[in-house]
Amino acid sequence: MVQIDPRRLLADLRRLAGFGKVGSGVDRPAFTPADIAARRWLEQRMREAGLDASIDRYGNVYGRTPGARRAVLIGSHTDSVPKGGWLDGALGVVYGLEIARACIEQGCGAGIDVISFQEEEGRYSPLLGARSFCGLLDEQSLPSNLIEAIAASGFGGEPARLERARHFAYLEAHIEQGPKLEAARRRIGVVSGIVGIRRARVAAQGRADHAGTTPMSMRRDAGATLVRLAHAVLERFAGMAGADTVWNIGALELQPGAANVVPSAASMQVEFRDMDEARLEAMRAALHDLVVQAGRGQVTVELEETARIAPAPMDPELAGVIAEAARSIGEEPLALPSGAGHDAMVLSRVVPSAMLFIPSIGGRSHDVAEDTAEEDIVLGCRVLARAVEHLARGME
Amino acid sequence: MVQIDPRRLLADLRRLAGFGKVGSGVDRPAFTPADIAARRWLEQRMREAGLDASIDRYGNVYGRTPGARRAVLIGSHTDSVPKGGWLDGALGVVYGLEIARACIEQGCGAGIDVISFQEEEGRYSPLLGARSFCGLLDEQSLPSNLIEAIAASGFGGEPARLERARHFAYLEAHIEQGPKLEAARRRIGVVSGIVGIRRARVAAQGRADHAGTTPMSMRRDAGATLVRLAHAVLERFAGMAGADTVWNIGALELQPGAANVVPSAASMQVEFRDMDEARLEAMRAALHDLVVQAGRGQVTVELEETARIAPAPMDPELAGVIAEAARSIGEEPLALPSGAGHDAMVLSRVVPSAMLFIPSIGGRSHDVAEDTAEEDIVLGCRVLARAVEHLARGME
Repeated sequence: MVQIDPRRLLADLRRLAGFGKVGSGVDRPAFTPADIAARRWLEQRMREAGLDASIDRYGNVYGRTPGARRAVLIGSHTDSVPKGGWLDGALGVVYGLEIARACIEQGCGAGIDVISFQEEEGRYSPLLGARSFCGLLDEQSLPSNLIEAIAASGFGGEPARLERARHFAYLEAHIEQGPKLEAARRRIGVVSGIVGIRRARVAAQGRADHAGTTPMSMRRDAGATLVRLAHAVLERFAGMAGADTVWNIGALELQPGAANVVPSAASMQVEFRDMDEARLEAMRAALHDLVVQAGRGQVTVELEETARIAPAPMDPELAGVIAEAARSIGEEPLALPSGAGHDAMVLSRVVPSAMLFIPSIGGRSHDVAEDTAEEDIVLGCRVLARAVEHLARGME
Repeated sequence: MVQIDPRRLLADLRRLAGFGKVGSGVDRPAFTPADIAARRWLEQRMREAGLDASIDRYGNVYGRTPGARRAVLIGSHTDSVPKGGWLDGALGVVYGLEIARACIEQGCGAGIDVISFQEEEGRYSPLLGARSFCGLLDEQSLPSNLIEAIAASGFGGEPARLERARHFAYLEAHIEQGPKLEAARRRIGVVSGIVGIRRARVAAQGRADHAGTTPMSMRRDAGATLVRLAHAVLERFAGMAGADTVWNIGALELQPGAANVVPSAASMQVEFRDMDEARLEAMRAALHDLVVQAGRGQVTVELEETARIAPAPMDPELAGVIAEAARSIGEEPLALPSGAGHDAMVLSRVVPSAMLFIPSIGGRSHDVAEDTAEEDIVLGCRVLARAVEHLARGME
């Protein structure tokens, strides 16, 4: 049985958090000097672990187990949002490093490849590294500022690629970034899938009028129309939601925005997420109907879909292996969807993929306040190592 | 019967509009070079009309009929909002100039004093000139930027003052700044009073959360709370409104304002106006109740009253004189409240006051697009002159 080294695991996580350190978090967006330095350090650390390590031109840091014919791929990303948390994607990468290192030291015989994808967070183009690795990146249409960042990085290797004959499973560990594990008092989450996202901008156009002299009946009040519509959307969505459906009106503004002027224009951003594509489609249709109804008066109302990301179910069999690994250590896992996007969203399109979550203290993430108890960090790595061992038996 | 000179009236209005001219409007806020030049021109024009004219230290341009023991005061203001209309306050001032001029020329015997109050629009402190004239200005607590503007203006005269023994009526003509006359196909409005105004800022404080990973039940969504509250306010106010009550949610914003972040904070500005103080008070109480209800959940909601201006009823007898003057020329006037503030709001506290409205094309005002048909401009002056004649008979 592979034994991971908890002190080495935590020490590597702490060392990685030294790159771009801000308070208790990190500021390490893709292609910043801190990100580049962190990736060079990681490449070196993979070599010390006995992996064949390299960095490709997009910044993916990739370590392969030498001599293996088949391998489990373990990874995530080491870039962060501006002023983000120290664990986020770094956790899943260092789990992979520690498990591969322990396995090579202890001669467990399993092939383990480890990867830190570049630019998961979307400073230029989200999930860049994962898309390249999976052959899903259109290299001819990269934004020019990204091309410049790549050129300036000094990374130059040929793009690393998933090998279908070699890679039979992708495993990604991550902090939950939400409060569900903590609320349920569970320490291990097994992700059923990554939710689909729909996002729309709703804009109302009326007419500015003096709010003292214009009778209510003669107004074309874009603000009142949008407030009524926003209220109706909240009510309607609540009525059609499943247990894990979420929705948000994150932005709403009125123009010109003065107390004594009837708003001439108003807009809002509506977002909703669910694992069920049919429910997402029903919510989209409901939003559309409400917009059409709202636009039947003196104010024009328009809907523009600004994002549509399909749900990405995880592989049930692989998820079952993680759940079983947790139980074998005495931890009953919680099955839950991931409400946030991850590299596994891309990987799951080309290889069976699964994700393990550990708790986020207070549900915090994408903030320097993000943290997880050390015992939970260590436990998550033990569970993942156990799952890899199980898969390794199938490799032979 | 005093005969005003339509061509001279219109020519003076056009000349005044040359000061600070922008397109078809004017940009002439108080104490700007354009405003100062316009006031100097007006003082000269009053002298040419035979009035004793002067400018006081606040910029009030004041012309008195020499030798009169009692006088009707006619006025308004010649300062404008930034990029405002050419008529607005200028109309009432030039009406006064033309009526006094015609009266002096034609020996009608009535005492007519004319005034252009300074700073009605509130670049520094709204209704400044009218408050000074009525002895309602606290000269010890003027804002420092206003004190600097006064010093730089070169105006230095002792403050002009209302004389209770002399001034027995104040008449102010103004464009309607709304669509009611046009909609009712009337050319003369007689103002019943200037509405009271209440204004409040409502602020909700919740907690920012990841909109994908935080279950609906665990959010403290300041945005959703405020949207529900705003909707309830619109519904409640509609149920308690009189025919002329108006209300407006002119500003509403969410923080931080990103599609994928649950709003941590939200605020809105609510304004309502009515002639009836009791109704204003009932609306304030209703708003307060709704805010208290909204704050009973996971989000804190607070209400801050930011403006409270009492309704200013016009003198019914004087209003009747204007209405009768209109009818004597064959125009049936429309009685209506003024939804906007005017110098008459201050004057009515110390002297019987009345206002006459002429139509605003399309209801436009506080914009360079503001305009009124020339025939309506001339008609309004004729009606006001007839009313002054009627009052003059009472003076003798």
